[in-house]
Amino acid sequence: MTLKRLKETLNNFKEGEISEEEILSFLNDLPYQDLGFAKVDHHRVLRHGFPEVIFGKGKTPQQIIEIAEALAGQNPNFLITSAGSQVFDQLQSRYDTCQFHANCQAITVLREPVQEEKGKIGIFSAGTADIPVAEEALVTARFMGNQVTHCCDVGVAGIHRILDQRKVLRSCRVIIVVAGMDGALPSVVGGLVNLPIVAVPTSIGYGASFGGLAALLGMLNSCAPNVAVVNIDNGFGAGYIASMINQGKADS
Amino acid sequence: MTLKRLKETLNNFKEGEISEEEILSFLNDLPYQDLGFAKVDHHRVLRHGFPEVIFGKGKTPQQIIEIAEALAGQNPNFLITSAGSQVFDQLQSRYDTCQFHANCQAITVLREPVQEEKGKIGIFSAGTADIPVAEEALVTARFMGNQVTHCCDVGVAGIHRILDQRKVLRSCRVIIVVAGMDGALPSVVGGLVNLPIVAVPTSIGYGASFGGLAALLGMLNSCAPNVAVVNIDNGFGAGYIASMINQGKADS
Amino acid sequence: MTLKRLKETLNNFKEGEISEEEILSFLNDLPYQDLGFAKVDHHRVLRHGFPEVIFGKGKTPQQIIEIAEALAGQNPNFLITSAGSQVFDQLQSRYDTCQFHANCQAITVLREPVQEEKGKIGIFSAGTADIPVAEEALVTARFMGNQVTHCCDVGVAGIHRILDQRKVLRSCRVIIVVAGMDGALPSVVGGLVNLPIVAVPTSIGYGASFGGLAALLGMLNSCAPNVAVVNIDNGFGAGYIASMINQGKADS
Amino acid sequence: MTLKRLKETLNNFKEGEISEEEILSFLNDLPYQDLGFAKVDHHRVLRHGFPEVIFGKGKTPQQIIEIAEALAGQNPNFLITSAGSQVFDQLQSRYDTCQFHANCQAITVLREPVQEEKGKIGIFSAGTADIPVAEEALVTARFMGNQVTHCCDVGVAGIHRILDQRKVLRSCRVIIVVAGMDGALPSVVGGLVNLPIVAVPTSIGYGASFGGLAALLGMLNSCAPNVAVVNIDNGFGAGYIASMINQGKADS
Amino acid sequence: MTLKRLKETLNNFKEGEISEEEILSFLNDLPYQDLGFAKVDHHRVLRHGFPEVIFGKGKTPQQIIEIAEALAGQNPNFLITSAGSQVFDQLQSRYDTCQFHANCQAITVLREPVQEEKGKIGIFSAGTADIPVAEEALVTARFMGNQVTHCCDVGVAGIHRILDQRKVLRSCRVIIVVAGMDGALPSVVGGLVNLPIVAVPTSIGYGASFGGLAALLGMLNSCAPNVAVVNIDNGFGAGYIASMINQGKADS
Amino acid sequence: MTLKRLKETLNNFKEGEISEEEILSFLNDLPYQDLGFAKVDHHRVLRHGFPEVIFGKGKTPQQIIEIAEALAGQNPNFLITSAGSQVFDQLQSRYDTCQFHANCQAITVLREPVQEEKGKIGIFSAGTADIPVAEEALVTARFMGNQVTHCCDVGVAGIHRILDQRKVLRSCRVIIVVAGMDGALPSVVGGLVNLPIVAVPTSIGYGASFGGLAALLGMLNSCAPNVAVVNIDNGFGAGYIASMINQGKADS
Amino acid sequence: MTLKRLKETLNNFKEGEISEEEILSFLNDLPYQDLGFAKVDHHRVLRHGFPEVIFGKGKTPQQIIEIAEALAGQNPNFLITSAGSQVFDQLQSRYDTCQFHANCQAITVLREPVQEEKGKIGIFSAGTADIPVAEEALVTARFMGNQVTHCCDVGVAGIHRILDQRKVLRSCRVIIVVAGMDGALPSVVGGLVNLPIVAVPTSIGYGASFGGLAALLGMLNSCAPNVAVVNIDNGFGAGYIASMINQGKADS
Amino acid sequence: MTLKRLKETLNNFKEGEISEEEILSFLNDLPYQDLGFAKVDHHRVLRHGFPEVIFGKGKTPQQIIEIAEALAGQNPNFLITSAGSQVFDQLQSRYDTCQFHANCQAITVLREPVQEEKGKIGIFSAGTADIPVAEEALVTARFMGNQVTHCCDVGVAGIHRILDQRKVLRSCRVIIVVAGMDGALPSVVGGLVNLPIVAVPTSIGYGASFGGLAALLGMLNSCAPNVAVVNIDNGFGAGYIASMINQGKADS
Repeated sequence: MTLKRLKETLNNFKEGEISEEEILSFLNDLPYQDLGFAKVDHHRVLRHGFPEVIFGKGKTPQQIIEIAEALAGQNPNFLITSAGSQVFDQLQSRYDTCQFHANCQAITVLREPVQEEKGKIGIFSAGTADIPVAEEALVTARFMGNQVTHCCDVGVAGIHRILDQRKVLRSCRVIIVVAGMDGALPSVVGGLVNLPIVAVPTSIGYGASFGGLAALLGMLNSCAPNVAVVNIDNGFGAGYIASMINQGKADS
Repeated sequence: MTLKRLKETLNNFKEGEISEEEILSFLNDLPYQDLGFAKVDHHRVLRHGFPEVIFGKGKTPQQIIEIAEALAGQNPNFLITSAGSQVFDQLQSRYDTCQFHANCQAITVLREPVQEEKGKIGIFSAGTADIPVAEEALVTARFMGNQVTHCCDVGVAGIHRILDQRKVLRSCRVIIVVAGMDGALPSVVGGLVNLPIVAVPTSIGYGASFGGLAALLGMLNSCAPNVAVVNIDNGFGAGYIASMINQGKADS
Repeated sequence: MTLKRLKETLNNFKEGEISEEEILSFLNDLPYQDLGFAKVDHHRVLRHGFPEVIFGKGKTPQQIIEIAEALAGQNPNFLITSAGSQVFDQLQSRYDTCQFHANCQAITVLREPVQEEKGKIGIFSAGTADIPVAEEALVTARFMGNQVTHCCDVGVAGIHRILDQRKVLRSCRVIIVVAGMDGALPSVVGGLVNLPIVAVPTSIGYGASFGGLAALLGMLNSCAPNVAVVNIDNGFGAGYIASMINQGKADS
Repeated sequence: MTLKRLKETLNNFKEGEISEEEILSFLNDLPYQDLGFAKVDHHRVLRHGFPEVIFGKGKTPQQIIEIAEALAGQNPNFLITSAGSQVFDQLQSRYDTCQFHANCQAITVLREPVQEEKGKIGIFSAGTADIPVAEEALVTARFMGNQVTHCCDVGVAGIHRILDQRKVLRSCRVIIVVAGMDGALPSVVGGLVNLPIVAVPTSIGYGASFGGLAALLGMLNSCAPNVAVVNIDNGFGAGYIASMINQGKADS
Repeated sequence: MTLKRLKETLNNFKEGEISEEEILSFLNDLPYQDLGFAKVDHHRVLRHGFPEVIFGKGKTPQQIIEIAEALAGQNPNFLITSAGSQVFDQLQSRYDTCQFHANCQAITVLREPVQEEKGKIGIFSAGTADIPVAEEALVTARFMGNQVTHCCDVGVAGIHRILDQRKVLRSCRVIIVVAGMDGALPSVVGGLVNLPIVAVPTSIGYGASFGGLAALLGMLNSCAPNVAVVNIDNGFGAGYIASMINQGKADS
Repeated sequence: MTLKRLKETLNNFKEGEISEEEILSFLNDLPYQDLGFAKVDHHRVLRHGFPEVIFGKGKTPQQIIEIAEALAGQNPNFLITSAGSQVFDQLQSRYDTCQFHANCQAITVLREPVQEEKGKIGIFSAGTADIPVAEEALVTARFMGNQVTHCCDVGVAGIHRILDQRKVLRSCRVIIVVAGMDGALPSVVGGLVNLPIVAVPTSIGYGASFGGLAALLGMLNSCAPNVAVVNIDNGFGAGYIASMINQGKADS
Repeated sequence: MTLKRLKETLNNFKEGEISEEEILSFLNDLPYQDLGFAKVDHHRVLRHGFPEVIFGKGKTPQQIIEIAEALAGQNPNFLITSAGSQVFDQLQSRYDTCQFHANCQAITVLREPVQEEKGKIGIFSAGTADIPVAEEALVTARFMGNQVTHCCDVGVAGIHRILDQRKVLRSCRVIIVVAGMDGALPSVVGGLVNLPIVAVPTSIGYGASFGGLAALLGMLNSCAPNVAVVNIDNGFGAGYIASMINQGKADS
Repeated sequence: MTLKRLKETLNNFKEGEISEEEILSFLNDLPYQDLGFAKVDHHRVLRHGFPEVIFGKGKTPQQIIEIAEALAGQNPNFLITSAGSQVFDQLQSRYDTCQFHANCQAITVLREPVQEEKGKIGIFSAGTADIPVAEEALVTARFMGNQVTHCCDVGVAGIHRILDQRKVLRSCRVIIVVAGMDGALPSVVGGLVNLPIVAVPTSIGYGASFGGLAALLGMLNSCAPNVAVVNIDNGFGAGYIASMINQGKADS
């Protein structure tokens, strides 16, 4: 449920437009709505200003769709990550604005326009194969109302490519850096700008990359102190916390 | 060198108060000053608005002091982390305001007052033994001009202790969570507030904590999406990036 | 073989209803029945009060069925874990009460009603994707004659969901906590109740969860001292030991 | 604070023996007493029926003593694990009954006799070098009011030694097994008795024991299903949860 | 080539039955025969008294067959491990005595009877799922001319099963123990008999077995000193070295 | 773009054969050509004397082909590694000289003859299954204009096979050694010759080879000091750096 | 107790030289003698033909000496490994023949001459720093009555050194190979001789040797099939199992 | 022994200046000189053009000195790495030119001037704390007759520092890059120059650097293909192979 909708309902009650019974029923699901296999946390919108996001991995398509329906009952917009096309096929008939971001397997439904915040999030990814993870960050950050710019294939072995982006880098309020293999890009970017860097290691690589471990360790040991790291391939988390950092600027 | 000092010098030249020769000599060390064993990056203050911090580990006391002298020549204030008391003994005779933070082995010299920014950084540490890492974050964040509040011993096994802090948590712009052992605190805190969380795993623990690996992995796999992680025991990095997040709010 | 059946047979011999030859033949398989590829441990029922459970993984369907037949010859009820539907298809024609628990791939045959013990086992799982492991614990604990309650999707990132369950938690004699990713739930639950906690890490997660290693380490390093841990995804073991803890209460 | 003392105080208030002001002051520290560097959780005694135990590792002697004083103000008895002799030297002058268990570095203060529960906890350790960890479990379990028996040097490479103990094993309600190196003992013991086994891997070993990792993995992969595992060298945790299992039997 | 055949040929030359040219051509391939993608080491039979065994994994069926043909040109008997049924299909038409051991995917061709040595090798495997690895050891040891006995499903959680085998154990000259999961069986067997134990960890297990790592570490840390270990799932190596140990007894 | 082509174009401009506008357009893509999903680094030929190589893994066939086209616009010859046959099918219709090296999945297009350098690179691989990785090194080194010799199946367990190659070994300027399993070959080869050794661990093996980790560690710990190591299965990198070492000899 | 002594005592009883009471008292300690902190396994001499060896690591000097006294009461000879000089100082005053092997910290007491077996054990170590581990194997094997030859510094990077030893290698019945760093020596030796190889990885090395892990993995993945491995630095175990292999030859 | 000395001796014999007996005695130690605990490989100078280097770690001072004496008997110059000052104290009285390189604990004795080769080796180290490892490479490379330049503190977080060195980089024939923490520098340098890069990870760092593992993995996964890696902290190996690469240029 959006904060907006909660405020409206409270005011409707105050002004006598809905009965006590109606508002109590409305508030009943506020902490969470229990679907049996899931407790949909509608209260989150109060704590976080943002509804729960459905993480599709490990859930059956049927479970994803039921949770989506529960969210849709309380929120105009919602986001599903790591969803398959099977989920999309079922959802697009129900929601006109349903969109499938095939690269990163995310689904968005936007029944209300997203209001864009002022600050900009920059996403820089090291190699072509890192693009899907970068796109999950992109979809998430845009869904949360941020201006986002994405620049790909700027890995450190051709250092002039990232140096060329210095102007773009400095125009952002927060930077997401996505890299697999040696995970070296965040250290370089962290040294170039006076901004918080959210580093996302990817599982791209082979052999001694050990599924992204090499990139993860590289980023955790970055010699630039303005780098913090999220889980391997966690584009969603990077987009989410970058949005918080970006939007925190306005509200105080 | 501070931005302020660079601007003054450029204006002094413009207004004829110093000669071309003098300003060239001044600018000579701008990119970095070469001490032989170290290249002190005075240019950093332009890129990052903040002078290089001396990371003491692995350097000899003599090297630390020479780098400190080089920084002191260009900056009123400077910070040394992981310094020993031996370094402090030598520096305190030269700098009146030199202060040793024994818990975390950091040294600060503040010859100009630090101007305090508006937003607040909250530091929450799980156990008593995690305090030294939390204090490194505290010293760093205060040195960089942030309001900081620190609350310790609020680990999740007595959940009422962190729940009691909800009001404090919500008064901050960014939260640093410091925890060893299971590293579970950031997930709980991340769920309580709509703020970016910088999680610092510590090497506190024994056996299967494997020097902080357990806490590190726990934090990277946090089910709260607003958590990003720095290296084990890296209180300095947490304070640094939290400062960037906090202060980013004002400048756009 | 059940303890009951053994006692009956011994008494039948004592009262002359069966001959010495008959009882010797009966006792022949007592230590174990050798099927060539397996030694079915009928003696276990004497040591453990409970027949061997068939662990299906790594056995061919044919092997599973032969062991099941051997157990069925001595026990009214039996349990197979990690069995495929192929095994179920063959067993259900032979045993009326054969039931397939598809979520966790377990099969139960209950030809005698299970007598329910007094104490209650509570199972709390962190995410929707952890349900299959929780269900293996549930099926096992019910098969062994315990009252069981299961509550899912109470992960720590929405802490109010588990706090809501305090009353249920306190009504149990032993708690099973099932969680993947950061594995933080047992530490919180362990702090809330004065009960033994059996923690089950799951392989749910991605990237730095390393197949459940992160959750496993988190649980082993729990700051709550009333937490013991079983193998990753080992719902069966959790249900089994929880049953022992629960039923131990009555017999002394 | 003990439950007993809390009840007395409440009744004193009810019967007018203490004023409202007095009881409020008394209840003020109930959730926890804040020492600055630690929040002593006096509320624990209500949740867990047992005061907080002080884990000495990572705390300074001064911090340990201040926490001990805070606990001593509310509880007749308290326990400190991983304390050094330096702490003991200071405490024994203040508390007559203060006792140092040098093998495992634990300190107990028992100003009220511990009431012994009916069930028995059996501790079986594999090698002579595992004794300190076993003793930590012993001290903890005795402190919590359990009958405890300890039998050492019964590792599996001389299998007749543990087989000799079958009668003792079966006289217990819960078994703690302590083993380093291959960690094989819990699997054997788990097969011998129908009881919950709490397995404690130790860091005893060398080379490929990797600080207890080999024993830990062995125990987690035990083919006996009645085995749950605590952290490497965590004798305290084993004693604690075994006490809960043992004493749970009486109260329902 | 067999030692027998080499001796015959040398004598044939000595007695003039073959020319110098003929024997030189014969000796040409002695060190190895180069197939382009492989150097078939015919010299091995002189150094090891046994022809090279073809390890099928990672080779194409075509490569396996070409190497088999090269060996067949010099040796009456040969062995292929980790071969698929596709290789068998092609070889069985060429070699009457070709036999496929489906459990462990090994192929044997025995055109000359194997002469059985006096000592006996005992193979003891812990669980039903460990049988394929045990069978690879069995096939290898029999191929090399040893008496072999195999006893399966004698894991330590039902310790009476292995204790029942003491007589068989003592009738052997060397013991192979095959176990997955906790890998505890070799420690128990090592304590029961005064014989060298070759321990084979298997990849059987799940979760924290990490593909056999738990069993491997358990065996390397065995508290019985008469245990040496081969690679995970390496039934072939165990059979090979056990044969050397067994047959070494006769020749000195 | 080749250095040759750049020089020609610059001279054409100097001599008035192309206009300023034409040369500017030509130089526009010099640093890199932006395809949206990739920045093709044409500048590399100036820095490295060699165009970018397309690493096919993690890229879609369509992306590989577009990058190939971009390279083909500037370079007569190009190389794609880890490409599938699907990519080859599309490229061979466009480029006559397109060749698929099926063993290692590499594709070469050679529209200009490669000029062969004087020094020789020797590639020695330990087992038949290591051949694909060795061939990737071979294809790369030949593409870069080196004489290459490849000798396979010379693993250390039949030491006479590599000792036989001493003459070949000494005829080279740099040696590539490819080995899986124990990774022991580079130590032996490193001791035999006074040449730099580039060691390539492969993922060939099973069990405790852990995907090539065993071979990698073995090579990093080589007791021969003239060994440096590339990533597991990285035949391309080995061929590349060996080419640099070989060709460096001529130009100074 | 030695087998010899047991037989004598039984015959003394049979022939009336000692009473029933006397022999019962003598047999009382047969299974094991309980010292409180240790159960000395006198029965071992019957099962293994060899008394328990005292592994000194993790035991206090006092414990070692008490166990030594217990063994000395039943056996003429005994061996202590990983003992310190402090233990030696106390033992040498009591036992004339007490000898300290300082390199490997072992102590032997030989009050009866050791009878030498016919076969020979060869010990080959790779580097000078591996000698202490090799000496532990040497002391153990000699103590157990084997002829032993030791040849050191024959690592594979100077392959002619081990090739020079071929004659010695072939004169043995079993070979122990001791190596740190890359652990490559057993693969080469395994290929040279038709004998069982017991490989001992050592913790000698640095960096990516990870305390002997590299050598351990190398040996487990040896491409020679006649190699089995013991724990890192476990010279004692290698000597022990080699003795069993060597002496097994005589008794059948 | 130097090649020069061997040639002289052979010619002396040819020209009758020394007798057959004398040259045989001289040649006796050619393959290696056996010191009991070490086989000094004088033959190496023929195979490698360079005498054995003494690796001091794990050897006693006495052993180091004896090996040094043996080398000194055959070679004018020699090098000891990881030697302590205790060794130096004893050697400097015997060899005038004996020099201690305290930073990296290496000792050199140069009784003949080293002839400098034409090409230059560039050593670039990331941080001040990496200097000791870089110096081991420097000492080794100079000892072997190379021109060497060393530039320190050019880590990637201040990327302008390494970009400033492009001219120096390009003046070299081979580059050694030394870096701890994230190990990112080789990827950047590898992209800047068309030269072979020998990357040396160091153990500098803390927490998730895991003793240099992070830097090692980063370097192995470098996205620049001209990077090969040596062991953590292996400055000697880097200097050695770089020398071979550098000097290889001249001799063909």
